[in-house]
Amino acid sequence: MYYLGVDLGGTNIRAGLVDEYGDIIRMNNLPTLRERGFEPIVRDIAMLVRGLIEDESLDPADIEHIGIGIPGTVNRKKGLLIYANNFDFANVPVVEQLRSHIDLPVYLQNDANCAALGESAAGAAKDVNDSITLTLGTGIGGGIIAGGKVYSGFNDAAGELGHTVIVRGGEQCTCGRKGCWEAYASATALIRMTRRAAQENPASLINTLTDGAPGKIDARTAFDAEKQGDEAAAEVVGEYIDYLSEGLIDLVNIFTPERIVIGGGVSRQGENLLGRVRPLVEEKIYFKGEPRTSIVQARLGDKAGIIGAAMAGD
Amino acid sequence: MYYLGVDLGGTNIRAGLVDEYGDIIRMNNLPTLRERGFEPIVRDIAMLVRGLIEDESLDPADIEHIGIGIPGTVNRKKGLLIYANNFDFANVPVVEQLRSHIDLPVYLQNDANCAALGESAAGAAKDVNDSITLTLGTGIGGGIIAGGKVYSGFNDAAGELGHTVIVRGGEQCTCGRKGCWEAYASATALIRMTRRAAQENPASLINTLTDGAPGKIDARTAFDAEKQGDEAAAEVVGEYIDYLSEGLIDLVNIFTPERIVIGGGVSRQGENLLGRVRPLVEEKIYFKGEPRTSIVQARLGDKAGIIGAAMAGD
Repeated sequence: MYYLGVDLGGTNIRAGLVDEYGDIIRMNNLPTLRERGFEPIVRDIAMLVRGLIEDESLDPADIEHIGIGIPGTVNRKKGLLIYANNFDFANVPVVEQLRSHIDLPVYLQNDANCAALGESAAGAAKDVNDSITLTLGTGIGGGIIAGGKVYSGFNDAAGELGHTVIVRGGEQCTCGRKGCWEAYASATALIRMTRRAAQENPASLINTLTDGAPGKIDARTAFDAEKQGDEAAAEVVGEYIDYLSEGLIDLVNIFTPERIVIGGGVSRQGENLLGRVRPLVEEKIYFKGEPRTSIVQARLGDKAGIIGAAMAGD
Repeated sequence: MYYLGVDLGGTNIRAGLVDEYGDIIRMNNLPTLRERGFEPIVRDIAMLVRGLIEDESLDPADIEHIGIGIPGTVNRKKGLLIYANNFDFANVPVVEQLRSHIDLPVYLQNDANCAALGESAAGAAKDVNDSITLTLGTGIGGGIIAGGKVYSGFNDAAGELGHTVIVRGGEQCTCGRKGCWEAYASATALIRMTRRAAQENPASLINTLTDGAPGKIDARTAFDAEKQGDEAAAEVVGEYIDYLSEGLIDLVNIFTPERIVIGGGVSRQGENLLGRVRPLVEEKIYFKGEPRTSIVQARLGDKAGIIGAAMAGD
């Protein structure tokens, strides 16, 4: 039996045919062109998945269901996209629209939950039942897996793990509150901190590495400059790691998941990041006994969303 | 079928015979006398539950199981009390010890989780599947109910909802971190804030109501003085409500539970507290759609722990 997973992004629609082991058999994509309205987008989703079925000489009857990862809030029961950050649409009956093109069960799921499901089904949390997957990118995506399934609350809106205040009255967050973890531990926050340090330390390697152009500073810059011995960069990285750990400690105290999986751009620092985060977390979590939560790097990269969408059935 | 619930506290052991509807048929208690070592405590637990069975002319065969609420960490699978704040014991094989006195299945559960289970089975969250129960007392007890069951992580240690930092570097918490929610929204925190206000405002009614003795200030004092028009007290209450709301917003963003139940001493303020908390939470939670989390007062008082313990089976 096969599954179809669709990762609907602001720029691209990516679809994959996934087998029961969570392996992607074949992938394809189309530009989202989000300004064009939602119905043509759904038509393209239908075209993509039909293409995948045909290219593998399969029949719709070989497909268990289609899952779609949405960058926003969904209503799973009603099959609605309620609201998505990157789109101008609200309350779109995505399931109904897609089923008018292709007669298969369709499930919606939030994209961060899909990433968590993907890592749980076939990635870094494959061997455990309870995990949390964080995606450190523009924001902090969060997905909670409990007993192998997404925990998404009674209204499909749970898992906004980045929108928890760690610095009351602190940095303005996009959600309207001040001091959210996302405003301190996302890639965006790291870039902001790196830019501030560059401005305050004109002689810093941060400026050398980016030709003095703040616009060239990205989530790698501070780590790169630190490796070359730059003090201001080391301070930024140290501060970032502190903030990241603060929220991770909270999550361990709340969930004691068997594993926390960290993905997204910043996670590519691998052990240079996680090797420094772990002792900070270990030192301060509430539970002193065994067994303990492990913190690991994500494994599936941007395929997690497709694989997780394919696994987003009932 | 009947269940036996035991609430093991630092001062008293309270036990109840509970029916399948979560109603307490009969209760009894004994002093804990915690300095005497754990085996005599277990003997007294056995005596209490045997007494309840006999007083109702029941037979052990009429009892499904015994559940014990422990003020600390347990290992449910191994039947161990791992660690309890109020006791000098660690790694006690409670289940094995109790079963040497009485031949019934025995389950352990953390006491805050028992309170949550109780409110879920027979109290303020009876009609929903996903709820969180908070007990605002010396600390903040937290219990997560997902799909009608306690979510306690892979090591039974989840649900330390009070030990999440909302003010980084803030007030010292008993857990070793600084700025935990518990250090701002527990009854203890409210008393600390009230005492500070009393000291800084000698003319405040807070001092009049407590004969100028800081030791007489409790979790009701600020609310009482506010009701009589005292400005300093109103400021304390307003600040407390802000802190309480901050953590509640985090919990809604993380879990979007169908209901949050608030118990413990401070919750006796009822709508005077919750009626002011709700709009603050509503204003700032991430999810803007329907349906929404409701925040209500606990219903079972100190019986929640016994009823929940009775429901703490597999």
